[in-house]
Amino acid sequence: MTTSDVTIGIDIGGTNTAFGFVERSGTCVAESSIETRAQDPPEQLIERLHAGIMSAHRALASPPAIRGIGLGAPNANYYRGTVEYPPNLKWKGITDVVKLFKKYMDVPVAITNDANAAALGEGMFGAARGMKDYIVITLGTGVGSGIVAGGQLVYGADGFEGELGHTIVDPDGRECGCGRRGCLETYASAGGICRTAFEILAESREESPLRHVAFDELTAKKLADAALKGDPIARAAFDRTARILGLKLADAVAHTSPEAIILFGGLAHAGDLIIGPTKHYMEEYMLNIFKNKVKVLPSGLTEGNTAVLGASALIWKELER
Amino acid sequence: MTTSDVTIGIDIGGTNTAFGFVERSGTCVAESSIETRAQDPPEQLIERLHAGIMSAHRALASPPAIRGIGLGAPNANYYRGTVEYPPNLKWKGITDVVKLFKKYMDVPVAITNDANAAALGEGMFGAARGMKDYIVITLGTGVGSGIVAGGQLVYGADGFEGELGHTIVDPDGRECGCGRRGCLETYASAGGICRTAFEILAESREESPLRHVAFDELTAKKLADAALKGDPIARAAFDRTARILGLKLADAVAHTSPEAIILFGGLAHAGDLIIGPTKHYMEEYMLNIFKNKVKVLPSGLTEGNTAVLGASALIWKELER
Repeated sequence: MTTSDVTIGIDIGGTNTAFGFVERSGTCVAESSIETRAQDPPEQLIERLHAGIMSAHRALASPPAIRGIGLGAPNANYYRGTVEYPPNLKWKGITDVVKLFKKYMDVPVAITNDANAAALGEGMFGAARGMKDYIVITLGTGVGSGIVAGGQLVYGADGFEGELGHTIVDPDGRECGCGRRGCLETYASAGGICRTAFEILAESREESPLRHVAFDELTAKKLADAALKGDPIARAAFDRTARILGLKLADAVAHTSPEAIILFGGLAHAGDLIIGPTKHYMEEYMLNIFKNKVKVLPSGLTEGNTAVLGASALIWKELER
Repeated sequence: MTTSDVTIGIDIGGTNTAFGFVERSGTCVAESSIETRAQDPPEQLIERLHAGIMSAHRALASPPAIRGIGLGAPNANYYRGTVEYPPNLKWKGITDVVKLFKKYMDVPVAITNDANAAALGEGMFGAARGMKDYIVITLGTGVGSGIVAGGQLVYGADGFEGELGHTIVDPDGRECGCGRRGCLETYASAGGICRTAFEILAESREESPLRHVAFDELTAKKLADAALKGDPIARAAFDRTARILGLKLADAVAHTSPEAIILFGGLAHAGDLIIGPTKHYMEEYMLNIFKNKVKVLPSGLTEGNTAVLGASALIWKELER
């Protein structure tokens, strides 16, 4: 192996599938994406993806050796190499994605869900470099998580671990897409904080431009902009979200005692609006022996496509076993 | 090493300190205990303990080789070999127990908290034999936990992991000994279920012999006896306890996706009164992908002192690294 060898990191999303050639150092030498076409069967996506990868590879000045392929996808199972009943793709049942890829490329292939890939990316290239115990929480459309304990990603008994987004804040609380009530995701996701804003609009009599925004028109981005301008409803929505997230992170600390919790994804981009208050409430709710020991950090994956870097880290880690 | 070699498992409790000579198979060839004398400094306990161990060892027909010493103690830190500010001993600050022991015996010594020792014991000799991902919950005076993920006990960043007893059920809930409110321990411990019984006595108008028992006279054992006789208050107390425990176990499953959760200790002895309903509510509160996959089992450590077996498993595991 030379230092210019690469792995391919692939992030299969509902709309686009991104891929990149990533060196062991974390340098992404080239990156591209194709449409996912969620309605098409998975065989077609893999075929088009392979063609796209080969064409991008040929276009490189001196095409590096490809050591392996790492994939991040929703509902991916690491043990089985599968994607199972993905919520945002029209694939039927269980797809053996690793096997499909092996038809085209004779290199090691591994897959995991996007939050686990993010956790591996933070550990290899980002904010958790050198840490053996940490948790990555992705705050986006959903709330995902990847837990690393003793230097190993926790996959659990069946390869589906780390669903902190579906720990329960209130068993009588908000309806969740998973069919239950009161999951953390219904509070701490991009959509969750918007629900909280409307809850506060209903409770309070405070004036706010948000009173002119319809439910389906509000976004976490609009809320962050309003909060930065000092809007009291938006600020209260961030505070209430941070309190709930902090409470559940204190629980997470009691499970695996991490050195750091890294917040990743859309809502985390709101930066000081969410990270500072979350840390504050986490400390408030945390058991004495853990107090003032656990860092809360923004993602350290700043260059290029963080999901691609995470997927690449997955396969680099496999190669180094 | 011969099959008759032993390790010494030691369980330091607030009242008594038990020890036993345990073969790799889990057979405890001899067992004894001494008074802990919680007021005395730790040096005196270790000195008396060493004397007791030596005398018990000499008394064996053909004294086996001692391969190592494993200890379970409250607030023990595995990484540092210490006991730190134990709640039930009058030891000052931080005691390096491993170092104290090494003065007397030149064999490997390791220490961890009692719940972690229980988890290792279940994995090596008990209900979790052959499992790589499981959680042991001790339901006694307190609620402790040991989490095993990918075959390794999760110690976390500072050796204090697995405090599921101090995950929060309700941030505005019952006062906990830890100084916060609403910890699982205030509901699912022996004392917690008694508090719940009094809550139900206050809410309902149902007749019950429990209306003649004072708060400080009620025990989990009395409640279990009453429930077995069909007392509606006692039965409701078990049901409410199981619901809360089931809810928090569903959260625990979302963290590490175990193959089984093993209930251990005093309250778990209530057997079907607690294990069946806990499993029922855990399933009710669990995310789809985990449903009907996670076993809830009673401890499989049936012979002799389970805490001694756990402490012995700790050091057997170290020796096999």
